[in-house]
Amino acid sequence: MEYQLYYWPSIQGRGEFVRLALEDAGVPYVDVARGEGGMQKLLAALEDEVHPSFAPPFLKLGEMTIGQTANILLYLGSRHGLAPRREEGRLWAHQLQLTIADLVNEVHDTHHPVGVSLYYEDQRKEAKRRSTEFIANRLPKFFGYFERILAQPGRRGSFLLGARVSYVDLSMFQLIEGLRYAFPHAMARIEADYPALHKLHGRVAGRGNIERYLASPRRIPFNQEGIFRHYPELDEATP
Amino acid sequence: MEYQLYYWPSIQGRGEFVRLALEDAGVPYVDVARGEGGMQKLLAALEDEVHPSFAPPFLKLGEMTIGQTANILLYLGSRHGLAPRREEGRLWAHQLQLTIADLVNEVHDTHHPVGVSLYYEDQRKEAKRRSTEFIANRLPKFFGYFERILAQPGRRGSFLLGARVSYVDLSMFQLIEGLRYAFPHAMARIEADYPALHKLHGRVAGRGNIERYLASPRRIPFNQEGIFRHYPELDEATP
Repeated sequence: MEYQLYYWPSIQGRGEFVRLALEDAGVPYVDVARGEGGMQKLLAALEDEVHPSFAPPFLKLGEMTIGQTANILLYLGSRHGLAPRREEGRLWAHQLQLTIADLVNEVHDTHHPVGVSLYYEDQRKEAKRRSTEFIANRLPKFFGYFERILAQPGRRGSFLLGARVSYVDLSMFQLIEGLRYAFPHAMARIEADYPALHKLHGRVAGRGNIERYLASPRRIPFNQEGIFRHYPELDEATP
Repeated sequence: MEYQLYYWPSIQGRGEFVRLALEDAGVPYVDVARGEGGMQKLLAALEDEVHPSFAPPFLKLGEMTIGQTANILLYLGSRHGLAPRREEGRLWAHQLQLTIADLVNEVHDTHHPVGVSLYYEDQRKEAKRRSTEFIANRLPKFFGYFERILAQPGRRGSFLLGARVSYVDLSMFQLIEGLRYAFPHAMARIEADYPALHKLHGRVAGRGNIERYLASPRRIPFNQEGIFRHYPELDEATP
């Protein structure tokens, strides 16, 4: 049986964290809304399910529907070798994923601090304040946390959970990739302070299935509609 | 073995969703930071763990530490009869909990739209804009979603997952309770449109262990430091 991923067809957005897991695992899936009549199918499914989602992404497998990005990854991780088998490890992976999700929310709010229903243009001033605060305080706090985990004394392996890759590493790759797109100047300065995270990003980018995916038309380019948007005025002025 | 809950001692905050699950299940636990030397223990544990948390709450049981509110509830739910046994039901409960967490984040941002490191007083104007948008658009969208689930045709029972209470219902109770505190006028108007949610709140409030907990000194009163804060200027003017 094939997975059906339901997500907005024109952005990476939160769906991309799911796509990366499916691609790395080499699991066949259909990106429903990118096919013919896809948007109608997506909108109909939002209304129709027994277990409806508040918002995409959601994943269908036969009669089962799972929504919420981190929840989908919790499921996929245990099915496709992208998470530890034992409960304690699985919960630890999920904890890290939820912390990544918190950071993703904060990135989104840099360009939409007043509200998602309003245009960026109607909250530019607030967005500048929030971005400055994000770059100065929040981003270093989150990066420091993940770097600390990667650099724990006595740990083996260079992935977030240790020696084996997990969906958390794939999401961390995407987060760094997105932040580089959104805040190139700030990231050029900040990333040097987090060498283990920087290395993790490169290691994920070099995985065969990920490399092939990123070079394929299945990877939607970053743009100004997703979570990670590049508004030069929100970035630092100089690298 | 007894659970040790680590959370800020003076607010309900995100820790309250965990407290309600522990209380309803009648499970013995220590609210570590509220005991003697508690704050030091909390701060030390944030630094020391093998599986450190980015922020409280986190829960310890023997050598195991679990962080992130929804992740803690995922664990407690399956241990103490507050979630379905089968995987599909467990994932559905978790999906709803993560959607509640999204709404909780948006409530927090009504008074801190620019940044958590800044005082409310330094973002009052932005907070007013965000609250207006939240009350007009976001809250009805979320409530409409949950009401729709409670009112699905052919479903049995009046809890979010059906006939049996789950940690999701306890969290929904807390969310409504907090919103009533934060936006009493807006809620007095809005709640009437969501009769099934309103009823769910009352049903949880009437559960023996919850009733006893709410009347006990273990329940910290709402205040101006938590997620749910009452700034009259952010509420609607008239009920």
